[in-house]
Amino acid sequence: MDYRAETWATVQRVRERSPLVQSITNYVSMDVTANALLAIGAAPAMVHAVEEVEEFVGISHALVVNIGTLSPPWVDAMRLAAERAAALGKPWVLDPVGAGATRYRTETARDLAERRPTVVRGNASEILALAGAAQATRGVDSAHASSDALEPARRLARQLGCVVAVTGAVDYVTDGGRTLSVANGHPMMTRVTALGCSATALVGAFLAVHDDPLFATAAALAALGVAGEMAAAGSPGPGTFRLKLLDALHLLDAEALAAVRIAQQVSFGGET
Amino acid sequence: MDYRAETWATVQRVRERSPLVQSITNYVSMDVTANALLAIGAAPAMVHAVEEVEEFVGISHALVVNIGTLSPPWVDAMRLAAERAAALGKPWVLDPVGAGATRYRTETARDLAERRPTVVRGNASEILALAGAAQATRGVDSAHASSDALEPARRLARQLGCVVAVTGAVDYVTDGGRTLSVANGHPMMTRVTALGCSATALVGAFLAVHDDPLFATAAALAALGVAGEMAAAGSPGPGTFRLKLLDALHLLDAEALAAVRIAQQVSFGGET
Amino acid sequence: MDYRAETWATVQRVRERSPLVQSITNYVSMDVTANALLAIGAAPAMVHAVEEVEEFVGISHALVVNIGTLSPPWVDAMRLAAERAAALGKPWVLDPVGAGATRYRTETARDLAERRPTVVRGNASEILALAGAAQATRGVDSAHASSDALEPARRLARQLGCVVAVTGAVDYVTDGGRTLSVANGHPMMTRVTALGCSATALVGAFLAVHDDPLFATAAALAALGVAGEMAAAGSPGPGTFRLKLLDALHLLDAEALAAVRIAQQVSFGGET
Repeated sequence: MDYRAETWATVQRVRERSPLVQSITNYVSMDVTANALLAIGAAPAMVHAVEEVEEFVGISHALVVNIGTLSPPWVDAMRLAAERAAALGKPWVLDPVGAGATRYRTETARDLAERRPTVVRGNASEILALAGAAQATRGVDSAHASSDALEPARRLARQLGCVVAVTGAVDYVTDGGRTLSVANGHPMMTRVTALGCSATALVGAFLAVHDDPLFATAAALAALGVAGEMAAAGSPGPGTFRLKLLDALHLLDAEALAAVRIAQQVSFGGET
Repeated sequence: MDYRAETWATVQRVRERSPLVQSITNYVSMDVTANALLAIGAAPAMVHAVEEVEEFVGISHALVVNIGTLSPPWVDAMRLAAERAAALGKPWVLDPVGAGATRYRTETARDLAERRPTVVRGNASEILALAGAAQATRGVDSAHASSDALEPARRLARQLGCVVAVTGAVDYVTDGGRTLSVANGHPMMTRVTALGCSATALVGAFLAVHDDPLFATAAALAALGVAGEMAAAGSPGPGTFRLKLLDALHLLDAEALAAVRIAQQVSFGGET
Repeated sequence: MDYRAETWATVQRVRERSPLVQSITNYVSMDVTANALLAIGAAPAMVHAVEEVEEFVGISHALVVNIGTLSPPWVDAMRLAAERAAALGKPWVLDPVGAGATRYRTETARDLAERRPTVVRGNASEILALAGAAQATRGVDSAHASSDALEPARRLARQLGCVVAVTGAVDYVTDGGRTLSVANGHPMMTRVTALGCSATALVGAFLAVHDDPLFATAAALAALGVAGEMAAAGSPGPGTFRLKLLDALHLLDAEALAAVRIAQQVSFGGET
């Protein structure tokens, strides 16, 4: 597969179809997540009440569940929505924000992960916590490099029967067998809040228009990463950077996406 | 009436009096709504607990109720605040976000609409759902042109005894008898989240300083639309556009407001 | 003490140690607060459920409690977190947003203020309300100059055994004995939402890396004020200003911090 061309084709499909991405996400990320979805051409909807969350899944094209500012009423809604999405065969993505930081977070993330997500996206610490490996989450940031979590991610993907993405300086996306790496992005992305949450949201939008969850996930991460690279040029700080990132998502074209660096990853230890 | 001069006079009054606009609004829109109110010269206050919402109405100059991320405790507070505002004769505006998308949303919007709002502002799908016309809401975006909802809006305005605004490429503002159209704005406004919510908030601020709700609503929509036109010039994407929109609200003056395009609308079908 | 050099040393320590600042804050401020913390080099975490809030205090370096959009479940979490922080000897800061505007707000603020905060930061009206002085809060903005609240702030500081900061055109920071004034900032800061909340959050970050709460508070306010001065240069309105403020927090260096205007304040009335 020509990953660059296919990423560009997927961005074009997002713009043409404008998939409705239902997001049950944290308070911090709602604004930038909604704007990132709009900038790439998708339609965000933040809907979380148990009174309507299942009905809304019926009209959405993908569901994003992000536990960043979780509390019991929200977790109830996340469970209902996730189950409805799985039942209807609609793609849904789990972002286990801060798994490993507290028992409540880890247990909630694990409970949701068992409800048949299409994709789980987290940083290395979160994926390690979900996989039951050594826990060392520092707040909501990772204390590990993404490569530290690659083998646990592959085991987790096989166990859950889904795609697992570990994001960091290099992102790894695996279904337990195949693994793609994505080497796009910029360090400034760690100085703006909720860009990990935005990555998860874009994965939702891409899943809605592409049949291969492994590639769709890598393409979403690559598209955001390329936008980050475009935004970093000439940004004196994170304020300007965030604004330019939203502009860049809107401006992505075939030429810009020539910078996509998706590669098939050779297995470590020959497990596949 | 010279709509341009009167719009400018109203903007000046907002800046002089800095009306306190209490907002019970959705999580996605809080940041940009508060900043839009501040940029135009008003004072926002997001206050939603049933424990204080009625007392706060007592010190506010206008109330905005927006059901974008509704849940039962918030709906309870919306009802209490709306009733208090109506009882005190303070203007209040309803934004029935996503009415038509789920039963819970439609029923809540209708319940609130019966509590004597001064203005209801929505997109065509939301107004059609509120009016009991064909429902075809697609998430929180409209599946209809604003003109499709004009006659239902006029009937709804007469039924509720309030002003109804249907926003879209052209906005229509009606009290059931008179109708004003507002032909300001820019397509980029649909690529930034919560600008509809911000429109509703600005309507609240304008109602607080102007006695004619029909005109005040049209003027608020025109002012935001002109700011959108100013912001679109030279914006490469929605990130820059949103920032320039806030700058433009701050910079609005008589010269800029010469671009206001408010017009009296000739009735369709001679109903009035 | 050379206040400028010490402010710069403190900013550098924030960047080196990247303290984890747990924020139980209002919905409006979450985005800009998180971004302000990241821009200065700290690590924000918004965590508020009673199920995890105490456990999270165990891994955080400072706690910020902000009652801007309070409701009972959040207030429960604020109490638990504050008590745990006090028990563990971790610094915590209270932002009594809108104290004086409603009974619920005033009572909640007073209740929290008695749980041994390290610092209380508010505008003049909020500090007057907390101190039991004449109440005249107008929404969440102050109806008073900061100097009006200086003597009540000093009494409150002695009574609570903490540092009290009254912010305004000039900020006053007092432990009841010593008082520092901070004469940095720009009027445009009042046209962007949640910059008071961001000030409180930065105080949390500075407390985490400096042993003297009085100075750490003044330094945080001065750093934000200097960033505001930098941002105001060339900003046509509040949209651009907010973006440049985040850039400026990222760019602060010894040269920029030569603009710090912290001064020891001579006591009024010779009370000390």
